[in-house]
Amino acid sequence: MNKQKIDASTVICAVIGNPIEHSLSPAIHNAAFAACGLNWAYVAFKVAELKQAIEGIRALGIRGVSVTIPHKVAVMPLLDTVDEAARTIGSINTIVNTNGQLSGYNSDGEGALHALRDAGFDTAGKRVVILGSGGAARAIAIALALKSPPEKLTILGAEEQEVLKLSSDSARRGKVAVAGELLTDTSMSSALPDCEILIHATPIGMHPKSDQSLVPVNLLHKNLVVFDIVYNPLKTRLLMDAENAGCTIITGIEMFLNQAAVQFKLWTGQEPPIEVMREVLENHFK
Amino acid sequence: MNKQKIDASTVICAVIGNPIEHSLSPAIHNAAFAACGLNWAYVAFKVAELKQAIEGIRALGIRGVSVTIPHKVAVMPLLDTVDEAARTIGSINTIVNTNGQLSGYNSDGEGALHALRDAGFDTAGKRVVILGSGGAARAIAIALALKSPPEKLTILGAEEQEVLKLSSDSARRGKVAVAGELLTDTSMSSALPDCEILIHATPIGMHPKSDQSLVPVNLLHKNLVVFDIVYNPLKTRLLMDAENAGCTIITGIEMFLNQAAVQFKLWTGQEPPIEVMREVLENHFK
Repeated sequence: MNKQKIDASTVICAVIGNPIEHSLSPAIHNAAFAACGLNWAYVAFKVAELKQAIEGIRALGIRGVSVTIPHKVAVMPLLDTVDEAARTIGSINTIVNTNGQLSGYNSDGEGALHALRDAGFDTAGKRVVILGSGGAARAIAIALALKSPPEKLTILGAEEQEVLKLSSDSARRGKVAVAGELLTDTSMSSALPDCEILIHATPIGMHPKSDQSLVPVNLLHKNLVVFDIVYNPLKTRLLMDAENAGCTIITGIEMFLNQAAVQFKLWTGQEPPIEVMREVLENHFK
Repeated sequence: MNKQKIDASTVICAVIGNPIEHSLSPAIHNAAFAACGLNWAYVAFKVAELKQAIEGIRALGIRGVSVTIPHKVAVMPLLDTVDEAARTIGSINTIVNTNGQLSGYNSDGEGALHALRDAGFDTAGKRVVILGSGGAARAIAIALALKSPPEKLTILGAEEQEVLKLSSDSARRGKVAVAGELLTDTSMSSALPDCEILIHATPIGMHPKSDQSLVPVNLLHKNLVVFDIVYNPLKTRLLMDAENAGCTIITGIEMFLNQAAVQFKLWTGQEPPIEVMREVLENHFK
């Protein structure tokens, strides 16, 4: 078990959200601080009154903050600066407090990129399909478009307006060919055969509905890398189907891990102890 | 070494002040939480912008707060309620946050009372002299007057207006005979011979000027209990002189310990593990 010794010099980081009591972020970040010998500690605050909470974070000198549901969009106008990718995504999940100046970032998209790269894959120049158009899909699509542009990016989602907006935002900011379509068996049948990297960014398949998958088994093929951002269960129905079809799979734990690692680096300036952080998550889900 | 395991359910308490980096409060309270098996943690925040910090404490749901210099007076109008003793004292050092309702208390005076009682002495019906008229002296004089009124309370201080105000506040609220005078060798010569409990509540004798004492050695006598609130050094010049004169002595560590114990009970509702807390302080000063 990770343990922290707290004294009057301990630097404090926190996650804010509502609800918050099941967050794994304290466990993963405290383990990382301890592994690096940092006198830092990470706590969780359940927050309803966001404006006062942000003013408090400034006044209390809380160094780094993870922001989760329902505050990822509403928090943006309360910050001093928001980085370009997060502005385009339209949400942040990370605050860095530098002497009372609060800067916002979105580590989800970059976390997804790191997860793919750690597994030996980069989206640059590849044919990539993203399933979903909500917050997580936006973060990933825009990070890919800005930081590692695919040859072709196809976004398939259930909400037509969201899909169109995400497609045009990704295409405009990233100078990448983007196709956005309603997610149907037909659009998947068209997009998946020559796809190289499939990223599933919807909640389908999450516990307790872990028998569900959006992707027909016959569309999975062994040249496909399948990355599912759902991490509960660890191996989703989609990933089991993909494994059976001979695909390379990347689990949602890698996404969660890598977005946390990006936060760790933003706050501390140090390289994150990624194996220690992975161990915390793996032990939790074992 | 005290260590805390922090997860998303950990209840957070804090000390606010400026400066704060040498506070012993995190060490003592974290040890107490751990000893009681509470999933609580106590951190330190250096605070300049008090109003925003208090709003933040409310919004972040920080359960308990110790307030130290320079915020003990200015914080009062920012709270929802302040208890009678603290209102009369004119400062608080403790906040209890009950679902966003902030209540202020001053645990210094009650801590002094507990320290005396733990040593086997009560001020009720006794002849008591307090040296000093600043914040600590006020907290002690008013707590004594309200909660364990001496037969006679003499307040000797260097600031005439402060002494007069404290004397009249103590007399009015506590219905006790109070004499207030300027602190001089003459006033001490008059007050100390039949005094039973002497409480030193000025900074005189504190490190690095640890060779200083306000009290002439010839006025110390073996029927006197001498309680010095200075805890650095552990045994002040006054206490060494008192010990040589055959007095019973009570060190400042007992004051610090007992005010923290009163806070612990206000926040948790549980009896404080006082021996564990004392051990932390004694180890620190060893």
